Amino acid sequence: MSHKTAGTQQTPKNESAMALPLAPAPLDAEMSAYFAKCEEKLGFVPNVLKAYSFDVAKLKAFVAMSDNLMLAPSGLSKLERELIAVTVSCANHCHYCLVAHGAAVRKLSGDRMLAETIVANYRAADLDPRTRAMLDFSWKLAVEPWLIGEKERQSLRDAGFSDRDIWDIAAVAGFFSMSNRIASAVEMIPNEEYYGMGR
Amino acid sequence: MSHKTAGTQQTPKNESAMALPLAPAPLDAEMSAYFAKCEEKLGFVPNVLKAYSFDVAKLKAFVAMSDNLMLAPSGLSKLERELIAVTVSCANHCHYCLVAHGAAVRKLSGDRMLAETIVANYRAADLDPRTRAMLDFSWKLAVEPWLIGEKERQSLRDAGFSDRDIWDIAAVAGFFSMSNRIASAVEMIPNEEYYGMGR
Amino acid sequence: MSHKTAGTQQTPKNESAMALPLAPAPLDAEMSAYFAKCEEKLGFVPNVLKAYSFDVAKLKAFVAMSDNLMLAPSGLSKLERELIAVTVSCANHCHYCLVAHGAAVRKLSGDRMLAETIVANYRAADLDPRTRAMLDFSWKLAVEPWLIGEKERQSLRDAGFSDRDIWDIAAVAGFFSMSNRIASAVEMIPNEEYYGMGR
Amino acid sequence: MSHKTAGTQQTPKNESAMALPLAPAPLDAEMSAYFAKCEEKLGFVPNVLKAYSFDVAKLKAFVAMSDNLMLAPSGLSKLERELIAVTVSCANHCHYCLVAHGAAVRKLSGDRMLAETIVANYRAADLDPRTRAMLDFSWKLAVEPWLIGEKERQSLRDAGFSDRDIWDIAAVAGFFSMSNRIASAVEMIPNEEYYGMGR
Amino acid sequence: MSHKTAGTQQTPKNESAMALPLAPAPLDAEMSAYFAKCEEKLGFVPNVLKAYSFDVAKLKAFVAMSDNLMLAPSGLSKLERELIAVTVSCANHCHYCLVAHGAAVRKLSGDRMLAETIVANYRAADLDPRTRAMLDFSWKLAVEPWLIGEKERQSLRDAGFSDRDIWDIAAVAGFFSMSNRIASAVEMIPNEEYYGMGR
Amino acid sequence: MSHKTAGTQQTPKNESAMALPLAPAPLDAEMSAYFAKCEEKLGFVPNVLKAYSFDVAKLKAFVAMSDNLMLAPSGLSKLERELIAVTVSCANHCHYCLVAHGAAVRKLSGDRMLAETIVANYRAADLDPRTRAMLDFSWKLAVEPWLIGEKERQSLRDAGFSDRDIWDIAAVAGFFSMSNRIASAVEMIPNEEYYGMGR
Repeated sequence: MSHKTAGTQQTPKNESAMALPLAPAPLDAEMSAYFAKCEEKLGFVPNVLKAYSFDVAKLKAFVAMSDNLMLAPSGLSKLERELIAVTVSCANHCHYCLVAHGAAVRKLSGDRMLAETIVANYRAADLDPRTRAMLDFSWKLAVEPWLIGEKERQSLRDAGFSDRDIWDIAAVAGFFSMSNRIASAVEMIPNEEYYGMGR
Repeated sequence: MSHKTAGTQQTPKNESAMALPLAPAPLDAEMSAYFAKCEEKLGFVPNVLKAYSFDVAKLKAFVAMSDNLMLAPSGLSKLERELIAVTVSCANHCHYCLVAHGAAVRKLSGDRMLAETIVANYRAADLDPRTRAMLDFSWKLAVEPWLIGEKERQSLRDAGFSDRDIWDIAAVAGFFSMSNRIASAVEMIPNEEYYGMGR
Repeated sequence: MSHKTAGTQQTPKNESAMALPLAPAPLDAEMSAYFAKCEEKLGFVPNVLKAYSFDVAKLKAFVAMSDNLMLAPSGLSKLERELIAVTVSCANHCHYCLVAHGAAVRKLSGDRMLAETIVANYRAADLDPRTRAMLDFSWKLAVEPWLIGEKERQSLRDAGFSDRDIWDIAAVAGFFSMSNRIASAVEMIPNEEYYGMGR
Repeated sequence: MSHKTAGTQQTPKNESAMALPLAPAPLDAEMSAYFAKCEEKLGFVPNVLKAYSFDVAKLKAFVAMSDNLMLAPSGLSKLERELIAVTVSCANHCHYCLVAHGAAVRKLSGDRMLAETIVANYRAADLDPRTRAMLDFSWKLAVEPWLIGEKERQSLRDAGFSDRDIWDIAAVAGFFSMSNRIASAVEMIPNEEYYGMGR
Repeated sequence: MSHKTAGTQQTPKNESAMALPLAPAPLDAEMSAYFAKCEEKLGFVPNVLKAYSFDVAKLKAFVAMSDNLMLAPSGLSKLERELIAVTVSCANHCHYCLVAHGAAVRKLSGDRMLAETIVANYRAADLDPRTRAMLDFSWKLAVEPWLIGEKERQSLRDAGFSDRDIWDIAAVAGFFSMSNRIASAVEMIPNEEYYGMGR
Repeated sequence: MSHKTAGTQQTPKNESAMALPLAPAPLDAEMSAYFAKCEEKLGFVPNVLKAYSFDVAKLKAFVAMSDNLMLAPSGLSKLERELIAVTVSCANHCHYCLVAHGAAVRKLSGDRMLAETIVANYRAADLDPRTRAMLDFSWKLAVEPWLIGEKERQSLRDAGFSDRDIWDIAAVAGFFSMSNRIASAVEMIPNEEYYGMGR
């Protein structure tokens, strides 16, 4: 249970959130409320947010983009978006994102075996053709973005995705190509709570 | 000269902005003003913005993050941030970003040879050790993010960067690792104006 | 509790152990006892053994080499050998081995966070210099074996390893370079029990 | 002609077999007989065996697996298995295995040009579709094992291989993925005799 | 305007042509005339020629091969040959060749946007199937030459190329695989004039 | 013994020289003499020359450059140049060049074991530091030319090479980066005689 109240300003500690010792700045009301909601819903504030909190403008920009991508209405389910997150993070061997989004896959799917399989290699999972096409595209975009073209977009259409869905797949795969790199560069440390989530 | 007025809503055309035929949505006042400002300052609205305009929430999130990274106060100059953008885009062979940010390097540096050199291979440019270290880190983060660790961060500190600067380098390199992929996946088409800018 | 008795011959089912439908052969007494011991100690027979059981001679050769490498006296602890197994399997994105040997790391170390970190990227773990040197060598041997030479061997000696230890590191890293490939080629399916082991 | 008698114990010298100076242990009767047979048949004991002889249990496990893979009944001819060995060793630039198994290809095929071609690049050899499919699979398994799936297995079936053959191809390609790495890591030195064998 | 007369011998300065301080040798009449013609036609002597001028025999061999490949009659237009040059140079991130041959594409095509697109990633250009097939082959030959075979040659035939054209494509792509490496190894510096040519 | 006389024109057959069926053109006197000399000295005309003979101008340009690089006075011995040729050809898995230049190494060094070792992996050869530095540079230039810079050139200087030698190393490594690709693209077939040469 969290004792934080939406609207109070707080200065989060981030000394254990990453390898860069950047002192957190005081949160504004919106971000304080956001952190409080995290504690309420998850039981903790994800370290990626604590890491960003040295600069509230950056934190807010990150939260806005991340929440739009992962939570806003889309032809992709939330689970599908998390599967992309984990697949891209596997290609990039990103510790923080594999732990945090592996947990999200467990939570959303209720299937811990699926989560661990995607962390290891999505090709070993028993996926329907739509999901497989989505992850094939995401992996290729992650590792050889210069090769993506009309043929790859058509593969997604053939698997039932709309052009709008193609944007969303690209945007989520792109976002984790960013997050993976920032997390690796500053050595973000996953919250302990993630390891047990959804088991 | 632009005839658009801040505050009027407009529906931009994006049929030539990318390969996905997503109809632009009506802009809200803030984004209308933003597009008007682009026309005023640059003479055109960058196609990346037109591409994003099918969904104003996504557009705003992209603009907020992009502007924060490239324009907000930082230990990195605006030119340095553009050099990272071009270096990462070179690693990813991203047409849109090489053209658009190559133009930005020309504009900010007044040095068209520098811009073309970074587009080709930053190692061929005559760079001071600080800039070289910054771009070496960015390249490695772009192509092998899983190898980045304390040693690479220390190289940046040895070249005079603070821990806050390290964040900014990682965040800009990460951002273009994302943008490159989205631009390649949807085949963003650089505005013609970029090709002549700063020459 | 297992109802199998050492010495009785049994024909294991392997239809769910891998993608190749090779009918299991009757086990000889030695292998029957071995399978029984697995059930007793682990509660199940690892699917890699069921997969191999279509040919008892191959099964026995695999068991002999595997047990020698992972269990025989060595300057490397059993946990260290499992850390190599997981590191190499991460480089090869091998689902079966990441699940099975990730479980072994949890069991031997009692540290589920360590296990999940090594599965993701051993460089993100907080390792002593000896372990880090061992895994750096193993990763390089896994991905660019043609570059290994006296310099890499000396790095291990500098970290405190004997020449005999170097053999053992190479042999374990080599063994999983084999197992990863066989498991991927025939699509071995990790036993469900692994997912919960050591949590 | 060898003067060794099966059953006598001998302590082989391995100082020239590899870069690690591990003193050979006394062989047991079985291995003494095995070494004697090598001398009788080949005229020498392969250095890989001398290298392993610092620990007789490891030597025996290696011999058992190696002989089973390369000599036991299989849908693959002995020559086919050697072709896989050389193809994988080419992908890994493994000196020891290219020399030793290149010699085996010469010996088994009586075609020194074929052997030298496979050492260089199997795609340049004039191969029937079955052999080509087998080596394409082996190369992919050697360099990108995480990409192997049903499609690749089906290619082998289409070329006439049974599921059991697929196992054998995977097992031989996997085995040399291991041997290549151990040989490179300890710098095994091919016996001089190999260079002239089969010419 | 050049004051050099065909037939006079001259000793070019190459201190700014590359990183290796090799003193230029006196040119013979043929090369003096050639340099004079360069100045007449281009307004300058390309630095690659100045770099080679430390040894007139090497210079002449280079000029003979280069001119034969780029200027002699062929089923490939001069522009097509320059497109191959730029595509291969992009794969190799070769600064000198991207600047010099990017300029040639601008000059021959009159299309500065095309030139900049090929420098960035030829897949983003709006190419007819023949040109696309030619550049796909060239890229593959540049980065994975060991994979080229009958299938790739057939793709060129299917796109309308003759066997003689295939030779020419291979020869031009091969030549820039050489030039890129020599230029990078000695750090050839593009003449300033290239940056403005054809704009 | 060759029955050809220098000065007579001949039309070589190249149907077995490569996969492209390009009819050989009549040789001019210079090339006829050159081919005759090959037959006299080697006992055969190398297939690379027969392949090129569909166009005498191309043949002459190739011969001029090749002979200058491999035979003209240089700080590098002829054997050293052949070692570079084989090392680069190994990186590119080029069948024709590995067979032909592997033979040249055997012939020039009188050491068939050295030749076979360089074909497999030059790092496994027992090389003096000068030769090792030369081949390390050549390998890096072959596989990652965009990374070569002052540091790599300095490594050569530290190993005793002059700036002129650096040019020659780069030029030979570059030349085989070209030849490997042309040979692979047209599938040049090594003359049978090469396989036995120098054994």
